[in-house]
Order: sequence, then C-alpha cells, then structure tokens
Amino acid sequence: MSASVVNVSPSPRAQQISSFLRKHDLQAWIAWRPDELVMLSTYFPFWGASLLVYFADAEPILFLPQIEPRDHIPAGLRIQEYPWGDLQCADPYSVLVSEIGIELAKAGVKPERVGMNPSAARTSLPIQAAEQIPMAEDFAAQLSALTAKPNARHESAFADLYLRKTPDEIQAIRLANGVANVGLQAFFENLQPGIAEAEVAAAVESAVYRQIGRDGIFHSRGWAMVQSGPNSADAGRFNRSTGRRLENGDLVLIELATCVNGYWSDLTRTAAVGSPKPAVSEILALVSDAQQAAIDGIRPGVSAADVDSFARNKIAAQGLSSFFTHHTGHHVGFRYHDPGFMIRPGESARLEPGMVITIEPGVYVPERGGGARIEDNVLVTDSGHEVLSRMDGSQQAGGERYGGKSA
Amino acid sequence: MSASVVNVSPSPRAQQISSFLRKHDLQAWIAWRPDELVMLSTYFPFWGASLLVYFADAEPILFLPQIEPRDHIPAGLRIQEYPWGDLQCADPYSVLVSEIGIELAKAGVKPERVGMNPSAARTSLPIQAAEQIPMAEDFAAQLSALTAKPNARHESAFADLYLRKTPDEIQAIRLANGVANVGLQAFFENLQPGIAEAEVAAAVESAVYRQIGRDGIFHSRGWAMVQSGPNSADAGRFNRSTGRRLENGDLVLIELATCVNGYWSDLTRTAAVGSPKPAVSEILALVSDAQQAAIDGIRPGVSAADVDSFARNKIAAQGLSSFFTHHTGHHVGFRYHDPGFMIRPGESARLEPGMVITIEPGVYVPERGGGARIEDNVLVTDSGHEVLSRMDGSQQAGGERYGGKSA
Repeated sequence: MSASVVNVSPSPRAQQISSFLRKHDLQAWIAWRPDELVMLSTYFPFWGASLLVYFADAEPILFLPQIEPRDHIPAGLRIQEYPWGDLQCADPYSVLVSEIGIELAKAGVKPERVGMNPSAARTSLPIQAAEQIPMAEDFAAQLSALTAKPNARHESAFADLYLRKTPDEIQAIRLANGVANVGLQAFFENLQPGIAEAEVAAAVESAVYRQIGRDGIFHSRGWAMVQSGPNSADAGRFNRSTGRRLENGDLVLIELATCVNGYWSDLTRTAAVGSPKPAVSEILALVSDAQQAAIDGIRPGVSAADVDSFARNKIAAQGLSSFFTHHTGHHVGFRYHDPGFMIRPGESARLEPGMVITIEPGVYVPERGGGARIEDNVLVTDSGHEVLSRMDGSQQAGGERYGGKSA
Repeated sequence: MSASVVNVSPSPRAQQISSFLRKHDLQAWIAWRPDELVMLSTYFPFWGASLLVYFADAEPILFLPQIEPRDHIPAGLRIQEYPWGDLQCADPYSVLVSEIGIELAKAGVKPERVGMNPSAARTSLPIQAAEQIPMAEDFAAQLSALTAKPNARHESAFADLYLRKTPDEIQAIRLANGVANVGLQAFFENLQPGIAEAEVAAAVESAVYRQIGRDGIFHSRGWAMVQSGPNSADAGRFNRSTGRRLENGDLVLIELATCVNGYWSDLTRTAAVGSPKPAVSEILALVSDAQQAAIDGIRPGVSAADVDSFARNKIAAQGLSSFFTHHTGHHVGFRYHDPGFMIRPGESARLEPGMVITIEPGVYVPERGGGARIEDNVLVTDSGHEVLSRMDGSQQAGGERYGGKSA
C-alpha cells in the first residue's frame, strides 16, 4: 500500500451498522423514520419525507423532497432530490420509489438483500412537528417490490442499534440535556402560588425554543407538562398541564421532553411550593432517595432488574411499593423513548458502556394529595456512570453554556 | 306512538356518518386516529391509544387504555377500559383486539361489514404530542381478522366526511382561531429589530399554551414558525425559526398551527419591521390584495379553481406568478391539513356551505430578499362566507374573550 493512501477508519456508528448488515446478509437498509435517519447519518429531517438508502459497500444516498431545507446536511452523503409541491407533481412518492429502484439496480443490490422497518409507529418527530409524518405504511407498500419481505428478525436486530450510543451521539444527548436544563431553570423560577400549571409549562417550553441559534442549535423544542397538588398524583398515568393554580404546600411535577437537533432528553423534576404536609414531603424525599440509589448502582454488567430493585426496594421499605406503578427507566436519545429493554423487575439484560437510560422512580398517592417522580438521563461508562442531565454549579459557572463537559 | 316518547333527532354529524355507513353497507367503523375520534365522537385522546367502535345501530364504544385521563369524555359513549402499563400487561393490544372481537360478536356484526382506515399517516396529534402515536399499521394487522379487507373506496368516502363541518364543529374551529389570534397578538407585539426569530416564535407558542383552563379549553398548543428578511423568501418551501435577529426593513412571516381541544387552525401573517424597500413592500401589498380577492369570491357553488384564480390572477398581473409556487388553500379543522380537494388550478370541485378552507396565497422572491403569505380560515356559509380567523376591534372589545361570535 502506498503511504499516500489516507486510511479513514469507520466511525463507531458505521462499524455497528456494518456489523448488523453483514450478520443479516443485507446489502442495503432503507430508512425514513426521523430517528433512523439521525442514527444512520446524523441527518435530522425537516419534513419527515426524506429517505436514506444506506449501502453496506457504498456511500449512503439521501433522497430529499424538493422543498427540504438544504442547510444542516452532514458530509459524506450523496444527495438526490425528488419533486414535491402540489403544482409540480401529483404523486412525488411514485417518483421517489422509481428513483430508489434505479439506484439499487445500479448498485447491483437485489430486493431480498434490502431491509427496512415498515412501521411508522413510535418514531421521533421531524422538525416540522405539528402533523404526523407523511410516510407511513402505504408508502412502505409502494416500496415492497424493492425490498425484502417484512422480517421481524431484521427489525428487532435494527432496534438493537439504538442501545449503545457513540461518543458523538453522547455529546449530542448531553447538549439536549443542557438545553432541557435551561427549561428546568424556568420551571424552578416560576414556582409560586397563584401561577397556573399551563403558565409554568409555557415558560419552560419558551425557554427551550429560545435556544435556537446558539451553540450550533438549529432545532430546539420542548414538551413540558406540569402537574400540581392533587394533579401530581396522576403523573404515574399521564402528564399534562391544566389551568389549576399552584398553592402553598403543593408538590409540583414537571415532565419535560426535549429535542435538540434530533436528539432527545427525557427529564422529570418534582418540587414543593412552600411547606407541604409531612405526608407529602415524605413522598418527595423517598423518591429522591430511591432515584439516587438506582443511579449509584449503575455500572457495566449490572442487570436492569437489579437497577430497578435498587429504587424499588427503597420504596417498598416504606410500604409504598403499590404506588410505584411503572418501570424505573428506559433507553433514551434517538427518541423520547428509545426501543430496547426496560429497567424493570424481571429484566435480565445487563447494562453496557455507551447505553443511556432514564432513571425515573415515582410514587403517586392520591389519598395524600400528591405524587413525585425524579428522572435523569444516565450514561453507562466503562467504570460506572455519568448523569448527563444534572448541571452542577461549577459547570454552570464555567465556560460551557449548557453545563456539558467538552468532548 | 305515545306522546311520552322523546324523539331525539340525530346530530348533523351523526346523520353524515349514518349515511356513509348505509351507502357502503357497513355496520361498524373502527377508528383510532385522533382526528377520526374527534369527528366521530368529539373525544380528543390523550395518549393516541384510544379506539372507537362506531355502530350503525347502537351506541359507540370507546376503548380507553387504563392510563387515559377520565375527564373530558363526552356523553353518549359506552366506555370500556383495557389494561396498560408495563408492569401490568405485556401486550395490551392483544387484549384490546380480543375485547373488540367480543363486542362485535355480541352486536352480530360480521368482519366484512366493519370498515376502518389502516393508515396512520398524516393524522392529527393527540394531547401527548411529543412522540408519534403508538397505534400504526402493525396494530391494523392485528385487527385485520375483525374487519373487512382494506378498501380504498371506504377510505376515500370516509375522507369526504371531513369536508362539511357541523355548527358545533365550526364553533370549535372558531375557538381554535380565537386562541390562535392571542398567539398572533404576541407576534405583532414582539416585532422589533434585534429580537431573534426563535424568540418571537417562543412568545407566540407560550401565549397559546397559557390559554389552557379558560373558556372550557383543556388543551391548547401552538407550533409557531417565524422567518424574517431573506429567510421569509424560503417560506413557500418550509417554515421554521432560526436564530436570525430581526432588522429594520425586514418582512417577517409567521406560520402558526394551533390545536385547541382537538380542533385546528392554520394561519399565516406577514408584517414589516420599520420601512422595507419598495420592492419588498410591494410583495406584501400584492399578497394582501390577492388574498382578499380570493376571500371575496368565496360562496357556495364556486369552484376551487375559480377561487384559486381570483388570487393567482392578481399575482400574475404583476408578473410574479412564478413566485407563487403552491396551492391557494386546503380544508382545515380536524387536522392542520384536512383531507379533501385543494384550492388550486384545475380543481373542479365546488364549495358547499359548512366547508372550512384556508386561503393562503404567497409570493416569495429571493432576489428581492423577502416573501409574504397571508392565510386565513374561511367558512363557506349559505349565502357567502365568514372569515373565522379575523378578530376585528369590536369583537375584541366585546364580551367574547376570543372574539368569536356566539353560536
């Protein structure tokens, strides 16, 4: 080999994808779900109508509708445009399908070696988040002549690609958590008797949205749900904001989903307004204690069931286990809720370095008039863990705007 | 007949649905898309995992996951719960499918007479809007044993049910537009040099969210996208907010999607900061003129193509038709973009009383450094039209908080 040949080693993500394709004897994977695009290429679609053909042995092709913005397109992708706009083209999808067929034929890839995930359920949202993404199963049907038959084994193995995040992805999730903390700061600043839940939530979402334009952030959107007093006792079943006004002695819970440049954070905080009754304060202290116990136990090799038990046992010891009605956590980062095993009783899967999970025990006691959950996003490191979602004072005071460490 | 028999006449919506089912020889329709639930029952789901079985000859059954909130459930529905929660039930959908089968059997309804829309594409979002709704085509596949084969004729006829809104629905869309106008007021109040597009948009969304709790509003969410100066020239292809700061002489365009209690408004405004150059001001004046011409022409019996031409001809007369790159409008109300014919060239469909359409001509001229669109939501009345989205001074000063007329 000549010394002048530049030998670029594939990124950790590219290595994971190659290994997946090789193992399943696939030569290409077709993706259009926003979270799949982000994982496969870091491209975060605006319309949700972009489509990537990822080849085992060639540069990926990103098909963009004519109306897609052209900034924020990562390097290393071949860009191909397809028509859009109701005055230009009545059926853009048929054009797209035909273009994909041509490219697969050029590459000599046969349908039986092209995989895809036909489901549009539970995807991330694209930048344009006000309407369900346009490509769903009817489009998948149009693609079926170009791809292998739906294959549950492929889809399940593809879902495993969400589990171990790469250093770049961890940095992006760190940024999402940093932005989310700007929102949480607005939450704490607004906690006072008389303000409505929806007013607090609106202030949080506004703080998140306003981060666009800073530090490479081209998309930042939060979904904040605030529940106070008796409403906080519902937070184990659903999260939403009502017009209820905060009162002294309330517990106030915020659930905050944040998407920054296509990467997600999923956080919960619970705080007290004034001085709650002891029966209510105890709930918050217990949840805080249980959450810390689970976080403290996170390290490579520990089972999900064990991490769950570290939190659940604390709550059981106070006789409140029947009020902790959900899992302790889930994977997070490419979506609000990534696929993969849950941190829950009976789950034997073990944590590995690179996994990012939520830790979110909660106790909701209607008869005490309150509930609490505290949720952080925790990275499993080689030696233990790092909480990506807590910005301590030293970090906030430092040069990093969002409190994240430099890579 | 005894005089004591109360003869409740079916609502206009129930009459439309009955006529649809009769015509297609269907005895039941299964719906889970949020916009279908709202149309069939006025129920706006929280999780997007609620399912309605609408019978031709019996009370509808609304299946709710155990975790669904129980307030805001309309009268006249039989409620049935199915399990949820990862600690209680590993596969809630299989339980739901089995429960539906039991109810259809009880009612003596055979699969070939049960219709549904298998697609999850382009639906409204549920209240929990941060993740794609969980029921998609894999769930439809589970339901396939209970329903007729996918039938494009049924689906297309069902889409026609979106076209003519009933008086109650018009009132709900009026409320959504009233709330949207609170957001637009924040837009105009924030227009000043130095503020970032994302900061303006954040203020608008915040104003919309804060309406929760007023006048029967249990859900209110806006998606605001603000484009200024040269960015406004992109607004014919996409709408988003960046960190660009407004400058004197800019055109500033806001696209605002608003969902209130499950009903949608879709509005656009364009305003100038300070004094734009004449070449830019002309664009705004022309669009305003073109939009008013189209609105003025709206009455029952006029064709969509004619309404389009009223706007398009004004723009063509100034030699700018190549910069008006999209349709003049679409149906709106159950979704950000309802299905149905477009207001566009060549569209022969005619307007009928009860239709609610957007009128949104736009002219985007990169070489002049600006673009403008103005979009209103217009009801076709028996004698002409009513703009649902313009709140005039007398209405704002009156007793109606959102400027809407009383029913």
